[in-house]
Amino acid sequence: MNRFKITELGKDVFWLRDAEREHLVRVLRLSPGDLVVGYDNTGKEYTSVIVKIEDKSVTCRILSTDQPDVEAHTSVFMVAGLSKGEKMDWVIQKGTELGMAGLIPLRAKRSIVHIEGKKARDRVVRWQKISSEASKQSHRVQEPEISEVCDWKDLKALLPEDTQWLIPYEEEKSQRLSTVLGMMNGKHPIAVIIGPEGGFEETEVAWARENLGAQSVSLGPRILRTETAALAALTMVLGYFGDLG
Amino acid sequence: MNRFKITELGKDVFWLRDAEREHLVRVLRLSPGDLVVGYDNTGKEYTSVIVKIEDKSVTCRILSTDQPDVEAHTSVFMVAGLSKGEKMDWVIQKGTELGMAGLIPLRAKRSIVHIEGKKARDRVVRWQKISSEASKQSHRVQEPEISEVCDWKDLKALLPEDTQWLIPYEEEKSQRLSTVLGMMNGKHPIAVIIGPEGGFEETEVAWARENLGAQSVSLGPRILRTETAALAALTMVLGYFGDLG
Repeated sequence: MNRFKITELGKDVFWLRDAEREHLVRVLRLSPGDLVVGYDNTGKEYTSVIVKIEDKSVTCRILSTDQPDVEAHTSVFMVAGLSKGEKMDWVIQKGTELGMAGLIPLRAKRSIVHIEGKKARDRVVRWQKISSEASKQSHRVQEPEISEVCDWKDLKALLPEDTQWLIPYEEEKSQRLSTVLGMMNGKHPIAVIIGPEGGFEETEVAWARENLGAQSVSLGPRILRTETAALAALTMVLGYFGDLG
Repeated sequence: MNRFKITELGKDVFWLRDAEREHLVRVLRLSPGDLVVGYDNTGKEYTSVIVKIEDKSVTCRILSTDQPDVEAHTSVFMVAGLSKGEKMDWVIQKGTELGMAGLIPLRAKRSIVHIEGKKARDRVVRWQKISSEASKQSHRVQEPEISEVCDWKDLKALLPEDTQWLIPYEEEKSQRLSTVLGMMNGKHPIAVIIGPEGGFEETEVAWARENLGAQSVSLGPRILRTETAALAALTMVLGYFGDLG
């Protein structure tokens, strides 16, 4: 059954407008009587029947409401040093499927990509769309939010105060991710900070340790590309807390 | 330091020919006196100096020999249902970085891609090249071997007899990967069989259970694309046995 993000939720009905309406009408060519699933990012999903298709909206009558146990119980956020377009797209698409809670794009010192102002905002809109599509594909009921592109100093305010920060770092040789996970609490959010293509500078890791209480960790002896490191770390954290596999 | 796969190893010297020589001369434009690292897929690596560049070969004198602890101790093989080009490329590139021991492309019932004969062999050559490049990038000393494209009946003969087979399957709701890993032995090879885009048919999973002793496992409640499932399963297996993070 096709899945849609609800634009407006009523008592026994919801409406789809704009891009969701377009997708239903023009791409999927659905008609009144067809069944669809709607979700409203609260964790619920609504099995529904299309009752009316109009110029500006599609009306769906809700047949049943579920709260599927599909979301990770431990909130794992990704903070990703800006890397070239395709890598970021991949991390967002795959990270959404795997179960990340949200992603914050970070201007890191070695980020080759420099985006500011409108260009940065447009990029975030595109990333949010990728995340939204991956949410539907993986049957999630809460889409990860892609934050505005930010700087190191903005990070702390973007996540809850009890967030536990991890920073995989090539030069960290003694502290392994698996060891550190054993000392963490899956009831508090976890944020994983991943460097851009060239990795982090030492001063950035030191800043994260001092200002975020971040723990630097090793992902093992093989050198991983930034997108591989991001997805491997996310998989390991979610897996450790029983939220994957 | 740039890394090269050794074409021929002598006593205190090695030679690079063909593609390795081309890469050194034309792409990297190295000269006699430059330092390089050579590896010969035995687990050793050789820090060396270029002494002579000729039309057909590059001669390097070995300065020191190491056996870095960079390879996974548990051999994890991927068996991947043929999927569209880019997905397979990604699984091979990322799987190599993560530490897979090898990959077997499998003609699954729902594989959309059909390749036979020369086309299949050419594809394997290209995949082996991707794996070779990723091996260098991640500083591995044993390149994963990409096998010929095979059918279900060929699988058993391709891996050691004591291989433990896992088959992530969407319809498996009760047995989780993490639970099954707890009953496995990291001293024997593990093979993870991943379906193509449309997943496996039930008869294929039944065949794998009966003929390979494969255990079907769940990767959790979210629907994962084939390439995401492959990398998530590989990460979890390697992570479980201490070979990653």
